[in-house]
Amino acid sequence: MLRLVNELGKAPKVALFSHVSPDGDCIGSMLALGLALESLGKEVEFYNPDPLPHNLTFLPGATRIRRAPAGKTAPALLLIDCADLARAGLKPDQVPGDTLLLSLDHHISNRHFAGVNVVDPEAAATGELVYQVVLELGVPLGRDIAMNLYTALVTDTGSFQYGNTSVRTHLIAAKLLETGLDLTYVHHQVFDQKPLAQVRLLQRALASLEPAYEGKFVLMTLTGEDFAACGAEDSLSEGLVNQARSIQGVEVAVLIREVEPGKVKLGLRSNLWLDVNEIAVRFGGGGHKRAAGCSMNLSVAEAKRRITEAVGEALQLGRSD
Amino acid sequence: MLRLVNELGKAPKVALFSHVSPDGDCIGSMLALGLALESLGKEVEFYNPDPLPHNLTFLPGATRIRRAPAGKTAPALLLIDCADLARAGLKPDQVPGDTLLLSLDHHISNRHFAGVNVVDPEAAATGELVYQVVLELGVPLGRDIAMNLYTALVTDTGSFQYGNTSVRTHLIAAKLLETGLDLTYVHHQVFDQKPLAQVRLLQRALASLEPAYEGKFVLMTLTGEDFAACGAEDSLSEGLVNQARSIQGVEVAVLIREVEPGKVKLGLRSNLWLDVNEIAVRFGGGGHKRAAGCSMNLSVAEAKRRITEAVGEALQLGRSD
Repeated sequence: MLRLVNELGKAPKVALFSHVSPDGDCIGSMLALGLALESLGKEVEFYNPDPLPHNLTFLPGATRIRRAPAGKTAPALLLIDCADLARAGLKPDQVPGDTLLLSLDHHISNRHFAGVNVVDPEAAATGELVYQVVLELGVPLGRDIAMNLYTALVTDTGSFQYGNTSVRTHLIAAKLLETGLDLTYVHHQVFDQKPLAQVRLLQRALASLEPAYEGKFVLMTLTGEDFAACGAEDSLSEGLVNQARSIQGVEVAVLIREVEPGKVKLGLRSNLWLDVNEIAVRFGGGGHKRAAGCSMNLSVAEAKRRITEAVGEALQLGRSD
Repeated sequence: MLRLVNELGKAPKVALFSHVSPDGDCIGSMLALGLALESLGKEVEFYNPDPLPHNLTFLPGATRIRRAPAGKTAPALLLIDCADLARAGLKPDQVPGDTLLLSLDHHISNRHFAGVNVVDPEAAATGELVYQVVLELGVPLGRDIAMNLYTALVTDTGSFQYGNTSVRTHLIAAKLLETGLDLTYVHHQVFDQKPLAQVRLLQRALASLEPAYEGKFVLMTLTGEDFAACGAEDSLSEGLVNQARSIQGVEVAVLIREVEPGKVKLGLRSNLWLDVNEIAVRFGGGGHKRAAGCSMNLSVAEAKRRITEAVGEALQLGRSD
């Protein structure tokens, strides 16, 4: 951390990069750090390879973000929340040998690809690390920096609900709120921006909801027809499975999406004990114990039959130990 | 606060009371304080006039709660999170003249009815005040006390999302997490307990969703038939209107529920500027700027027409200033 802060302190010009499919943590972290560096009189460039999601355009500094460097890159590059160069949309030949390459990240998968790597997988968000950097650079926390860092924290922790939330997360949140930022404004901008098509899709998913195994398992399906009728892309179905997971008594929830005729994708979630990764692996997929996914070259009806059977077996085994 | 702590420190026996229609703050606060007092060797009784909601039964100490004192009440009574005696289900004749009556609360409406009143409307939850009392009693924070207080905080702040969340809230949350409590377990127990009937009701509400005024207004309806088909009581519709409020571009969301033929109740929510209290007042209801309600002796169809008209006028007025 000290070396990164020293390098940033010395550099007159820094280009900041965040990752493809940007989220609140990478964008909030990048903007917060960039605004802090600018307040020290440095020249700062902000890059992200993809367009900003609608719900992050309110962030102070967001209009400064460009898709890619026009010509030669700055002598110092800092990749934020990126496990490797490709994640920032950068190719090795875009980084000349004499470039000072820095990396600040909280992903355990980080490849330590840079000259200076600060990687802390214990951090709930890269925003926690940026908070530390801003502090050590001696930059006072203004509301603009605080709003960006607060957004980084709440997006990566689901508003302090996920298991990555720590004592440190709350202590930093307290410091950010001390600046007087309007947290209800941030929550509204970040979380209350569901596309209408997504809500239509949720309605159809819920209409398909079938409980089984005494309510321990709930299954939802979305057909190609559902997506078409809602004018929704597959990406809008992300997170819908949690609406089923949060029903009383449920241990496993599954959403089957038909991506093309004869091909489906499954999202699997569990609550307390069942290892859905094991189930996903059996069908050639994978993930984590409580959240996993897989694909099947099957009709929706056949996929329902197969996953219901597999979940039934797993529930049975669980009960017997 | 000092006087309350002194009185509790002296009392060998204390009866704790929480409020009717109990929530996570009153129950978590009461259990946390009771467990702390017991650790000091005191005799503690826990009371709540209503049955505990399903999602709070996991709290350490929850099985200790009784509905009402069997005989004579304890010489010291502490009402937690209650604005007056009635809120705790107590009648004046249940409190003899020589009773030491104490009140610990964060409601601005608190009537300062007790001998010692600690009322702090700046506290996001009464749990924040209990945290302070436990600290001043010199009781070390164990996981059981921490889990109760953490539940008090997350339920009254919507997991640190509501405007009542403060620097103090986060600092206390940090202290509670230091005990090593499993926050994902708490969140699952508290928030992932939706009755299936409620999810069915959400599906029907979403199926009825109609946007108007360029998407600034969304209206949902639930008929008596919807409630019957879902096996749901009116109380299960609470909060559903927020699913419509959180759609991108929406300023006002309304849910009309048919409570009997020819009689409807309306829940109104707004996001950034429109005063829904003003609209509710016009129909004989009321509430707050961003959340209000009213009743109409009208059919669902006629209520739709009237509220759509009223919201349209309000949106029009807003745009013109």
